[in-house]
Amino acid sequence: MGQPFDTVSLLTDIGTADEQVGVLRSVVRSIAPHAVVIDITHEVAPYDVRAGGLALVRAAQYLAAGVVVGGVDPGGGTSRRVIAVEVGAGQSVLVGPDNGLLAPAVSLCGGASRVVELRSLEHRLPSAGGPTFATRDILVPAAAHLCNGVDLAELGPAVDPFSLVPGLVPLTRVEDEVLKAEVLWVDRFGNAQLNVDPDELKGFGDRLTVTVGSATRTATAAVTFASLAPGQLGLMVDSYGLMSLVLDRGSAADELGISPGAPVDLSAPK
Amino acid sequence: MGQPFDTVSLLTDIGTADEQVGVLRSVVRSIAPHAVVIDITHEVAPYDVRAGGLALVRAAQYLAAGVVVGGVDPGGGTSRRVIAVEVGAGQSVLVGPDNGLLAPAVSLCGGASRVVELRSLEHRLPSAGGPTFATRDILVPAAAHLCNGVDLAELGPAVDPFSLVPGLVPLTRVEDEVLKAEVLWVDRFGNAQLNVDPDELKGFGDRLTVTVGSATRTATAAVTFASLAPGQLGLMVDSYGLMSLVLDRGSAADELGISPGAPVDLSAPK
Amino acid sequence: MGQPFDTVSLLTDIGTADEQVGVLRSVVRSIAPHAVVIDITHEVAPYDVRAGGLALVRAAQYLAAGVVVGGVDPGGGTSRRVIAVEVGAGQSVLVGPDNGLLAPAVSLCGGASRVVELRSLEHRLPSAGGPTFATRDILVPAAAHLCNGVDLAELGPAVDPFSLVPGLVPLTRVEDEVLKAEVLWVDRFGNAQLNVDPDELKGFGDRLTVTVGSATRTATAAVTFASLAPGQLGLMVDSYGLMSLVLDRGSAADELGISPGAPVDLSAPK
Repeated sequence: MGQPFDTVSLLTDIGTADEQVGVLRSVVRSIAPHAVVIDITHEVAPYDVRAGGLALVRAAQYLAAGVVVGGVDPGGGTSRRVIAVEVGAGQSVLVGPDNGLLAPAVSLCGGASRVVELRSLEHRLPSAGGPTFATRDILVPAAAHLCNGVDLAELGPAVDPFSLVPGLVPLTRVEDEVLKAEVLWVDRFGNAQLNVDPDELKGFGDRLTVTVGSATRTATAAVTFASLAPGQLGLMVDSYGLMSLVLDRGSAADELGISPGAPVDLSAPK
Repeated sequence: MGQPFDTVSLLTDIGTADEQVGVLRSVVRSIAPHAVVIDITHEVAPYDVRAGGLALVRAAQYLAAGVVVGGVDPGGGTSRRVIAVEVGAGQSVLVGPDNGLLAPAVSLCGGASRVVELRSLEHRLPSAGGPTFATRDILVPAAAHLCNGVDLAELGPAVDPFSLVPGLVPLTRVEDEVLKAEVLWVDRFGNAQLNVDPDELKGFGDRLTVTVGSATRTATAAVTFASLAPGQLGLMVDSYGLMSLVLDRGSAADELGISPGAPVDLSAPK
Repeated sequence: MGQPFDTVSLLTDIGTADEQVGVLRSVVRSIAPHAVVIDITHEVAPYDVRAGGLALVRAAQYLAAGVVVGGVDPGGGTSRRVIAVEVGAGQSVLVGPDNGLLAPAVSLCGGASRVVELRSLEHRLPSAGGPTFATRDILVPAAAHLCNGVDLAELGPAVDPFSLVPGLVPLTRVEDEVLKAEVLWVDRFGNAQLNVDPDELKGFGDRLTVTVGSATRTATAAVTFASLAPGQLGLMVDSYGLMSLVLDRGSAADELGISPGAPVDLSAPK
């Protein structure tokens, strides 16, 4: 028997407009009644593995110890593997398709100590007739069985951690004194998080040129929203420790016309 | 005393944009602190009893034993009854308006063993002044009291199960070798579930003509999404065991311009 | 040690499209595993303190005893205080920014018995690098510590309840026999709640003139939706005990072109 868990955290792209998330919660409740379900989010854009992986890694440091299910799976029905990844010396297990979704979070947690492919038919739900809906029929039941003390090894054969599909976190590069960056995430307020660590901007000064497509703006380094004048574009360390483009009580993303994945160039003013 | 339950599953059309769902959860927590609340969904289209009933029956086979509350109630304030329906030899109770919402799920569970009309004033919340909001003031409190071991019979007088309003699940029919079907549900990915059992398509072959309004398309019988070429319309058994019109990583519903309730004709190619 | 609580109810404006609400739930789970989290709503319009305060006061009478977190905080990063307010002889504590958000609910609960400013660094989460995200780093951890029996006094210095920023609930006034009212809230069905108590309409009769901008309509006093003819505008006591403009199975808000904050004049027909 492995160590029993009592929390299952869920992140998927299935939305909340119909009964599907309720079904996932019910499957946990039926198999492992003692486990508490925490919805991280179900509104990852459909099939967007990169956005799902980024949301998971932002959440990772805050998640309760237990089992985390990642259900963003454009390859459902193909031969891609579904896996369970043990991290943190057994403190938590991440379960999902082997498509890079879990990789950034696994990495943040210090890497995998054990990985198995979820092949055990005994720990799945029987199919309702058509093809398997992996999140409902394989991933969530596996998570619930782990909460009941089933050991990882019972869920399927061991997999070499180095064989897993890597994550898709984009890296910056410097070209002709321009930092070529990318929008990782836009929150509900229109703050646009970049893949830029504060250290990468050392030496750029307090005012930076921001280039998006053919448009150029000046952004002011700010410590808090309140230090920005109305309408003034700011660049600040956000609450995750990365650089974000922001407006005070306004949407920087709308102002600049940017969304996740958009390239953003940062440079010192000429 | 009846058998106490410890799970309350909720399905309503009240949305999550304001505090109303939080109020329902709080009412359960205040009356029956031990009960776990599972939100099936709260985003049934306003007043859409048919869509709510279909979501409930899709979820039914997965729900944890306990009390299920269905709150889609366009007749609030009229003389329609509100009822509690015991199914599965007392394993679960469905609570809701007697407007057909619960009927498909009750039927799937093998029919009602006992039904009562929720008339007991003692098991309601007092009105805040205006008319009763049935989901908050009658249905959810009844569910919570059932979790505390209150017997169905204490909640109101027995009702003849055969007097209940029937459900609205549409049936197919065959006309001139054409299977006249209907869209039941479109999921977040644009897959369009039809009211068609795989058996009904025996003899139609691997390629079918799909007629929506005046437009005609060919759909290919597919086992998995991955077996479809990009842009190729597929017809596959979905994860609920019904036939769905699908595209691989695309929205079949958008492509065909269909939404729930739309008529779809299926036939063998001429 | 104070009295330990076991329920944390959350109301914020951060939406559910990303992982942030999941992070709040996880923070509670990590610090106070026994506490049940109830999401009141996370879809208050961004920065809308008034709408958040109104949703909280509508919910207040139904909330389970425990800790309530209000996270609508346009002044994040300024010198505004974050506070914890004990109400109901210690039965519940409301936690949030001192910007008027909590004030209407505190008032409904009979006023504050104790207030502290949340200054204890020991009961916060460490910052991830940038500025503090108060809801995640201060408010929710404080709520979880209260659930563990930490006394209010340990969280920071006492604050004079009379120094708190007041709420923003708008009052009606009568001018030339016209009741000048305002829309407080529009629910998912388009019912428009006004800041009007039924008593204020005594003597206005069963048919009222409703003026919105330059448009005038007649509204009929109704007891239930079902007593209205199709398309007939009604004015009825809603399930919160306030007057609402309604249509039977239609959106009064769309019909009249009104949203929260819109002025509405009510008068007897000439």
